[in-house]
Amino acid sequence: MALIVKKFGGSSVATPEKIMGVARRVITDKKPEDKVVIVVSAMGDTTDELIGMAEKITDNTYGREMDMLLSSGEQITIALVAMAFEKLGAPAISFTGPQAGIKTNDVFNKAKIRNIDPQRVLSALDLGKIVVVAGFQGITPEGDITTLGRGGSDATAVALAGALRADSCEIFTDVDGIYSADPRIVPRARKMKEITYNEMLEMARLGAGVMQPRSVEIGKNYNVPIHVRSTFSQEPGSVIREEYTMEEQEFIIRGVTHDANVAKIAVLGVPDQPGIAYKIFSALAEANIDVDMIVQSIRNTEQNINDIVFTINKPDLLRARQLIDQVGQEMNVLGVVIEDKVAKVSVVGAGMLGNPGIAATMFGALAEAGVNIEVISTSEISISCLIPEGQVKEAVNAIHRRFFPENAQ
Amino acid sequence: MALIVKKFGGSSVATPEKIMGVARRVITDKKPEDKVVIVVSAMGDTTDELIGMAEKITDNTYGREMDMLLSSGEQITIALVAMAFEKLGAPAISFTGPQAGIKTNDVFNKAKIRNIDPQRVLSALDLGKIVVVAGFQGITPEGDITTLGRGGSDATAVALAGALRADSCEIFTDVDGIYSADPRIVPRARKMKEITYNEMLEMARLGAGVMQPRSVEIGKNYNVPIHVRSTFSQEPGSVIREEYTMEEQEFIIRGVTHDANVAKIAVLGVPDQPGIAYKIFSALAEANIDVDMIVQSIRNTEQNINDIVFTINKPDLLRARQLIDQVGQEMNVLGVVIEDKVAKVSVVGAGMLGNPGIAATMFGALAEAGVNIEVISTSEISISCLIPEGQVKEAVNAIHRRFFPENAQ
Repeated sequence: MALIVKKFGGSSVATPEKIMGVARRVITDKKPEDKVVIVVSAMGDTTDELIGMAEKITDNTYGREMDMLLSSGEQITIALVAMAFEKLGAPAISFTGPQAGIKTNDVFNKAKIRNIDPQRVLSALDLGKIVVVAGFQGITPEGDITTLGRGGSDATAVALAGALRADSCEIFTDVDGIYSADPRIVPRARKMKEITYNEMLEMARLGAGVMQPRSVEIGKNYNVPIHVRSTFSQEPGSVIREEYTMEEQEFIIRGVTHDANVAKIAVLGVPDQPGIAYKIFSALAEANIDVDMIVQSIRNTEQNINDIVFTINKPDLLRARQLIDQVGQEMNVLGVVIEDKVAKVSVVGAGMLGNPGIAATMFGALAEAGVNIEVISTSEISISCLIPEGQVKEAVNAIHRRFFPENAQ
Repeated sequence: MALIVKKFGGSSVATPEKIMGVARRVITDKKPEDKVVIVVSAMGDTTDELIGMAEKITDNTYGREMDMLLSSGEQITIALVAMAFEKLGAPAISFTGPQAGIKTNDVFNKAKIRNIDPQRVLSALDLGKIVVVAGFQGITPEGDITTLGRGGSDATAVALAGALRADSCEIFTDVDGIYSADPRIVPRARKMKEITYNEMLEMARLGAGVMQPRSVEIGKNYNVPIHVRSTFSQEPGSVIREEYTMEEQEFIIRGVTHDANVAKIAVLGVPDQPGIAYKIFSALAEANIDVDMIVQSIRNTEQNINDIVFTINKPDLLRARQLIDQVGQEMNVLGVVIEDKVAKVSVVGAGMLGNPGIAATMFGALAEAGVNIEVISTSEISISCLIPEGQVKEAVNAIHRRFFPENAQ
C-alpha cells in the first residue's frame, strides 16, 4: 500500500472533459490498495475571470474579500473532480482547504501554511475514498479563508503529503520533469531522474522555472519526495529528494540555468572606507530591492578607491538607479554604469564541493565559445557568471556540452 | 438604531454593475446608526452554469458534491458585494453560510436550518461593518457544506433575522409587494400594506407565488416581520407579520388567488363502507401524491353508494390515475372520471371567521360571472372553489371586484 498525493494544475482541469481525463488517469494508475489524495487548482481561466469581475467593481483587488472570491475557483474544481470519480465508479469526496485542515497565518493573498490537521482526510482515506482537496487555500485561526499566493497549489500538495506522511507527492505539469537545462535553449538537455532539494532550490533561484522554491522548501522540511511529471504521459519524471538513491552520481552537475531578468550596476571609484558598502546596500534593502551577485575590486591602491559591481532584477533598475545616483553623489564616486543587456548563466550541483575543476571547466567552455565573463559569483552548490545577454544560448549550450557529453548515457 | 436584514436575489446581483447598484442603494437607505446584514444569492445564471458543468460530467447531479459545487456561487457574490461596499467607503465583511453560523441537517440539496450561531455576524456588526452573508447555504455538524433548496436564500435571511433579533427582514424582489390578486390577471389588484403569516401561508398554498411558505413559516416561528419590496423602487412594499398594526381592517379578505396546476379525479359509485376512503387516499399518500380538496357526496342512499371527488397537482395525474383505476377495480366502483381543465380560485383572510357572509359573496360573484362551481372547500381562513380553467380570469376579477370595490381607497 502507498499513500500518494497527486497535484493537477489549472490547465489539466480546464474543462469538464479534461477533468474526466484526469479522473480516468488517476484510476488507471491506482493500485487497489493505494490511498490517493488529489490536489487541484481552479479550472483554466477561472481565476482570471474572477479577478476581472472584481476589477469591474474596485481597483483594490487585495485583502480578505479577494481570497473569499478566488477560493471559490478551486471549490468548483474539487466538486467536479469528485463527481468525475464517482461517475467512473470510484468513491470520492471533496474537501475545501479549510475542510482539509490547512491552517494558515492571516496574510491574505499570500498566506503561509502554519500546520495541517489531516484528520478528515485520513478518515475519508480509511473509508476507501479518493480525497480531492482544493489547492491554494486555507483558513486562519479566526475562520477566514486565505489563499496561498504564487505556487500555492504545489505548496498545498507537498505540505499535505508531509502531514499525511505520504510515500510520495506527484506534481503533474505540462513539462515531464526537471531538465539539465531549458530544452527550448538546449535541445539535448537531459531529464534528471533525481535531484536534491538544495539543488532544485538553487536552480529555481538561478532561473529554472519548473517548481516554485516554496514547495521544494516544504518538501525538504518534511522530507517528502516530490515527483515532477507530465500530465500527458505515463513516463516517470524527476524526483526531488534529500539524497540520490544511487551512491555514485552520473553527473556532478545537475543543471545549467540561465536568467536574463538581471541588470548590472557598477559604482566606480568608491572611497575605500568602512561603511561605504553598507550605505549602498542598505539604501537598496530599504527600497525592497534584491541584490544578487556582488563583487568589489580594487581600482587604484594609491588613491584608495574601489569599484563595486552588483546585479539586481531588471524591473528594479529604474528605482535602483535613482538611489545609487543619490548615494554616489554623497560619496563623491567617479561614476555609475548601468548595463541591462546582461544575463546570468549558472551550473548547479551538490557534488561540486569535492570537485575543484568545475569552475575551470565552466570558464573554459565560455572562453571557447567566445563569451566574455563580466562577473563571477559562487555558492556552495553553484557557480554563476554574468555574460552578455545576446550570448545566452551559445553559453548555455557550450557549458552543457562540457558537463553532459552527448555520448554519455 | 435598527438591525435590518436585507435579502437580494440573483437577478438583483447578476452583474458587477448591478452589485454596485445594490451597494449604493443599501448605503443610501442606511441611517448612520443602523446595523445592516445583506443576504445574497448567486449571480444571475451562475447556478445554471455550474449545473451545466456538472451535467457534462455526470447525470447524478445530487448529493454532497453538488452542494460543494453550487455553494461557490454565493461565495463569489458575497465577496464582490463586500468589495462594492468598501469601494463606496462603507466598511464591510463577507461570510459564507458556514462562517455566519448557519447550521443545518445533512440532507444535501434541500437541507433545513437547525440553528444559527450568529456570534461572528454580531461581532462584525459591533465593529460598524455591513455584513454580507451567502444565502442558500449552511454547514452540517460534520463540517460539510449544504444548500437549502428552493427558497433557500429567503430562508437564510429570515432565519438570520430571527437569530439576530433583527427589527425587520426586507426581501427585495422584482415585484413590489403582496397583491390582493395576481396583477397580471387583475390589473386593479391592490398592494397590501400588511398581511399575517397565516394569511400569507394560505395564499402561498393556494397559488400566490411571491414568497415560499418556508421562509414565512420561519418568520412566524421567530416572529420576524418580513417586508417584501421592490429592488427597483424606494416605495414601501408589504409587511408579513403576526398581527395587523391597525385594529380595524380595511378589507376582510386579504387576497384572491388562483391555481391552474390542479386536476380533479371523481371516483363514482363507491360502496359506503368504513375504510374505503382510507384505501384510496393511503394509496395516493404512499406514492407521495398530495391531495387537496376532498368532497364526498351521497349518490344513492338505497344502494348505499357515494361519489368521492378530490383534486391533485397536474403533474401527478398520470400516476394517480393508474393507482385509482387499480383501487377502483378492487372496490368495484361505477367509474373514475378525470378532469384536468380545472382551476382553483380562493379567497384568503383571517377576518373571515367572524364574517359569515364571505362564502355567499364569493359564490354570488361567480354566479353573476356565469362560472360554474364544481367543488368547494374551506379552511379557517380561506374558501376555495374549483371552476373551469378557461374562466379563471373572469372568476378572479369578479370575486376581486366584490371584495375590493374600485372606489374604496
